[in-house]
Amino acid sequence: MQFPSRLIENAVEEVSKLPGIGKKTALRLVLHLLKSDTNRTDALARGLQELRHNIQYCNQCHNISDGPLCEICNSHKRHHQIICVVEDFPDVIAIENTNQYHGKYHVLGGIISPIDGIGPEELHIESLVSRIAQSDPVIEEVILALSPTMEGDTTAFYLTKRLQDYNLKISSIARGVPIGGELEYTDEITLGRSIIKRRTYEVDG
Amino acid sequence: MQFPSRLIENAVEEVSKLPGIGKKTALRLVLHLLKSDTNRTDALARGLQELRHNIQYCNQCHNISDGPLCEICNSHKRHHQIICVVEDFPDVIAIENTNQYHGKYHVLGGIISPIDGIGPEELHIESLVSRIAQSDPVIEEVILALSPTMEGDTTAFYLTKRLQDYNLKISSIARGVPIGGELEYTDEITLGRSIIKRRTYEVDG
Repeated sequence: MQFPSRLIENAVEEVSKLPGIGKKTALRLVLHLLKSDTNRTDALARGLQELRHNIQYCNQCHNISDGPLCEICNSHKRHHQIICVVEDFPDVIAIENTNQYHGKYHVLGGIISPIDGIGPEELHIESLVSRIAQSDPVIEEVILALSPTMEGDTTAFYLTKRLQDYNLKISSIARGVPIGGELEYTDEITLGRSIIKRRTYEVDG
Repeated sequence: MQFPSRLIENAVEEVSKLPGIGKKTALRLVLHLLKSDTNRTDALARGLQELRHNIQYCNQCHNISDGPLCEICNSHKRHHQIICVVEDFPDVIAIENTNQYHGKYHVLGGIISPIDGIGPEELHIESLVSRIAQSDPVIEEVILALSPTMEGDTTAFYLTKRLQDYNLKISSIARGVPIGGELEYTDEITLGRSIIKRRTYEVDG
């Protein structure tokens, strides 16, 4: 692709480094900015840079935060006795958007994956254990909201072992046929497991 | 959508203002930047801002340019006798990428559209006329590469009238069935016109 200006070429180059954005889309975005008000570009650039340079991580749950303690850890409205363990902060955003969970979180910062050289010591597991050990009020339940993959299962298994000495309930988010999905298009492993792990029918679903 | 940080919310807000990018995609892009090196974000922000603030327009053809005269106008390898008239600079990039055109350009900066309140005086038409009048060597051909829409046709008609006193050939890019397209899926207006405007068969296509 040829560009009439080095500035455009450079901007397209940078934008097309973003995931899922090719040169053509990058050019479209860049030309859009060029046609819009200068303030738009400045606000975009400033927003990205402020985010990248000023972002902090919560000292307690390791979620992204604007201060040393995130809003969820700081909130008195959230249940202190339940911790939901997730792989990374997009998972927190996803769970928060369901409006179905009112406890606290713990962000591992990854998942145990020997192939990628990620062991338990690379993750925020020790801080979870000491958080549970020192917590007052005492933690009653840890929900493992990890991806249903081999690595997720390995991490869940490791966490269960590490936490077995504490008197708490360890649960895992339900796996099965997605709501709105059609049985005939569900993969056989999910469908098979959903039959094995069948539940007593309840009217509220 | 709820965000754990005001910085993320702001960045997502700015990114999702780009055309074709929704909140979910914006969040994915923002989280990608957050996981990448700080330099990546800085380079992206700098690239966009430099483009927006330092871009210039060629004094002759009104294409985007790094200096007062664009590379194409400056080039001695391009044919001086042919000017291709386009609506806007993305069209220049599109035609350049075909590698089939070796003349100069003239960017109108828009198209005559009474509904949008854009008349001939809003466009770079006078500068095209004076460019043709003053050109040495004399301009032999003007190619109208405008969109095959009502506005494109209106603009082409107006330009033809304005340029009729000059001794030059005025041509228009070919319209018809797109190469690689299937006849049965071609819209009836295009197909109908392509039959009316049929050409003597030539072996080289």
